[in-house]
Amino acid sequence: MTLILSNDDVERLLSMPDCIAVLEEAYVELAAGRGISRTRSDCIAPTSYSDDAVYGLKSMDGVVPKLGIGAIRINSDIVTNPMVGNTQRRVKVPAAPNDRYVGLVLLFSTDNGEPLAIFPDGVLQHIRVGATNGLGVKYMARQDAETVGLLGSGWQAETQLAAACAVRDIKEIRCFSPNKDNREAFSARMSEVLEVPVTPVDHAEEAMRGVDIAMCGTNSIDPIFFADWIEEGMHLSSIKKPEIDVAAVRAADRVAIHTHDTEPIIVVSKGAQNYEENEQKSWETAKDLDFDSFPTLPELINGDVKGRENDREVTCFLNNLGLGYQFAAAGSVIYRRAKEEGAGNELPTDWFTETVHP
Amino acid sequence: MTLILSNDDVERLLSMPDCIAVLEEAYVELAAGRGISRTRSDCIAPTSYSDDAVYGLKSMDGVVPKLGIGAIRINSDIVTNPMVGNTQRRVKVPAAPNDRYVGLVLLFSTDNGEPLAIFPDGVLQHIRVGATNGLGVKYMARQDAETVGLLGSGWQAETQLAAACAVRDIKEIRCFSPNKDNREAFSARMSEVLEVPVTPVDHAEEAMRGVDIAMCGTNSIDPIFFADWIEEGMHLSSIKKPEIDVAAVRAADRVAIHTHDTEPIIVVSKGAQNYEENEQKSWETAKDLDFDSFPTLPELINGDVKGRENDREVTCFLNNLGLGYQFAAAGSVIYRRAKEEGAGNELPTDWFTETVHP
Repeated sequence: MTLILSNDDVERLLSMPDCIAVLEEAYVELAAGRGISRTRSDCIAPTSYSDDAVYGLKSMDGVVPKLGIGAIRINSDIVTNPMVGNTQRRVKVPAAPNDRYVGLVLLFSTDNGEPLAIFPDGVLQHIRVGATNGLGVKYMARQDAETVGLLGSGWQAETQLAAACAVRDIKEIRCFSPNKDNREAFSARMSEVLEVPVTPVDHAEEAMRGVDIAMCGTNSIDPIFFADWIEEGMHLSSIKKPEIDVAAVRAADRVAIHTHDTEPIIVVSKGAQNYEENEQKSWETAKDLDFDSFPTLPELINGDVKGRENDREVTCFLNNLGLGYQFAAAGSVIYRRAKEEGAGNELPTDWFTETVHP
Repeated sequence: MTLILSNDDVERLLSMPDCIAVLEEAYVELAAGRGISRTRSDCIAPTSYSDDAVYGLKSMDGVVPKLGIGAIRINSDIVTNPMVGNTQRRVKVPAAPNDRYVGLVLLFSTDNGEPLAIFPDGVLQHIRVGATNGLGVKYMARQDAETVGLLGSGWQAETQLAAACAVRDIKEIRCFSPNKDNREAFSARMSEVLEVPVTPVDHAEEAMRGVDIAMCGTNSIDPIFFADWIEEGMHLSSIKKPEIDVAAVRAADRVAIHTHDTEPIIVVSKGAQNYEENEQKSWETAKDLDFDSFPTLPELINGDVKGRENDREVTCFLNNLGLGYQFAAAGSVIYRRAKEEGAGNELPTDWFTETVHP
C-alpha cells in the first residue's frame, strides 16, 4: 500500500530532535558522496491568476541509500512579490481549491522502487529548515550559548527557535518582526511551547544586542541583519541568502553554507518577465559572495572542517538553498513511524505502479 | 478532485494523431520560448535488490502556459545492464510489489497550482516518443514516402510505426529484431492494427534496403544502423542517441534533434560504480557528434529551419533526450478527455494540497 499522509501526521510523527538526528546522519552520507542530491529547479511561467503573479513548478530530488529512501519534493505555486513595509516579500498565494497551497513530497524505496508515501510538504519544509539551521548552531555556536535574537515571527521563525533550543541550553530569546501584534502573539506562544521566555522588542537591533545566537527566520528578499550588530563570539544564522547583509557575512571569522548547489536551475518562460524583474532579485542580493569558497554543513558534520576554533570567533551559517535530500532523510523517519502507528490513508500501490515498461 | 488514471485510461483517451497534434502545437510554444522544460535528471544509487543493479530516481518537468498545464514525470527504477546477443541492453526490472515498474506523471494547473491528475507513465511514454519521431517524419521525410524499415519489435517499435502511418501514407513495412519469434508475432499483430503489411525479415540490412524511412525503435545502447545502408532520399529516425552509428549521422545531408538539452543531469552515488561502468556508456556513444550544431524539432516546426530541401537529400532525426514538456502537452489532452468522460478514480484534492504555507 502507498500511504497518503497529512501535515498533521507529519507534525505528530517527526519531532525537531529526531529531524536533527536523521539529517546529521544523512549529511555524513552526503559529505562522503554516498548520499546524492539533485539541485532544485524552478520552471517559471505566466498564470491566468493575475498579471502580477507567476506560476512556479519547482522540484528537487535526493536519495539516501543508507536509509533506503529516495524523495522528490514538488511545489506548484502561484507567487506574487508585494512590498511589505520597506522590504519586498515573495508571497505564495493559496490559489488551489479551498484556498490551499500545493507542495508534495513523494517517497520511494531504493530496495524495489516502490512508491511508499505521498504527503504535503508544508510542515516538513519548516522542520527541515529549522533542523538544518539547528545543526549550524550545534556545529558553529559557542557551547555555552544561551541567548537568541530572532528576526521574524512566522512559521520559519518558530522552527528556528525550536531547533536552537534542541541543540543548546537556551535561557532567553528576544524577537522582532515589523508587525507588533504578530511578534507579541508569537512571543507569548513560543514562551509556552519552548518553556523559555521570549520577549518581543520594538527594533531589530534591540533583538540582536548582546545575544549569543542571531537568527533570521523571515521571507525577506532584502538584507535585514547588518555588520554593525555583530559582537564577539556571536553565531549568525540565516534561512536564505539575502537576510544577512554581505558586509556582515564578510565580517564573520568563519562562514559555512548548507550546500555547494548554490543556485537553483531556473527556467523562465518569455511570458513571465515580471519574475525576471522581481523574484530573481533574491538570487542577486548575495551575488558578490563567493559561495564556492565556503565549506558546507555536511563537511562540518563529517569533520572535514571545523565550525569554530574558540569562543571569540564570529561564526555565520547561511542556509543558502534547500535540498530534496533533506526530504528523503526526514521522510524515512516519517514513513517508518507512520507504518508503526498505522497512520494515514492507504491506497493500492498498483495505482502508482504499472505492468507496462516505462 | 484529483484524478488517478490508469495506463488503460491513457491508452483510450490519447490517440497517436491527437498526441502528434498537441505536441506540434506545444513545440511552437517551446521554440518561441513561451513553453519551458527542465532537463531530465538521474539520481543513481546502490540498491539492496542485487549487486549488479542500481536504483535510479529520474525526473523531468515542463510547463505549457498556452495549455494551462505543468507536468512532472518521475521514474523510480531498478536497472540492470545485461548483454543480449551482441549488444548491451539497459533493462528495467519490475521490482515493485506485484512485479511492477514505477513511473508516474503528475499534472498541475498553471491557473491555480492545483494538482489535476496522477497517472502511470508507461503508455504515454511510448506514445510521446512515437509522436516525436512521427513529427520528425512529418517535417523531414519525403512527402511521397511510403515504405518503412524498422529495427525493433517492442513497445517503442509499435508506436514508431503508428506515428509514421499517422503522418505519411505508408504502404509497406519491413521489420527486423534479433529474436525470430518476437519479430514474427510483432509483424503479424502490427499488420492488423495498422492495416499495412508488415513483413518480418532475417537481417537488419534487409529491413532497410530501399526504404523511404529507416526507423530504429530499440533499447540498444550500441549502434544498430550503419552508413552503408543509406540510400538517396532516405529519412533516418532514432529514438535514442546510440542507435544510428556516428558515421551514418555524418553521412546525412540534414540532421535534426529533439532538444538542445543534450544530456541529463546525472548524479551518481559513490556506492553505484557499476552504473559508471555500464549505463553511462549510452551517453558516450555519440559523444563525438556536436549536438549543439543541429537544429531542433521545435525549430523545424516553428519554421526557423527547413527539414528537407529536395527529394534526394538524406535526412536524419535523433530523438536525443525526452522532455517533461511532452508529458505536460499530451497530459493536457488526457486530462481534458478524462474529465469529459468521467474517467479514473477521484481523490479529494485536499489530500494533495495544504493550508500550511510551504
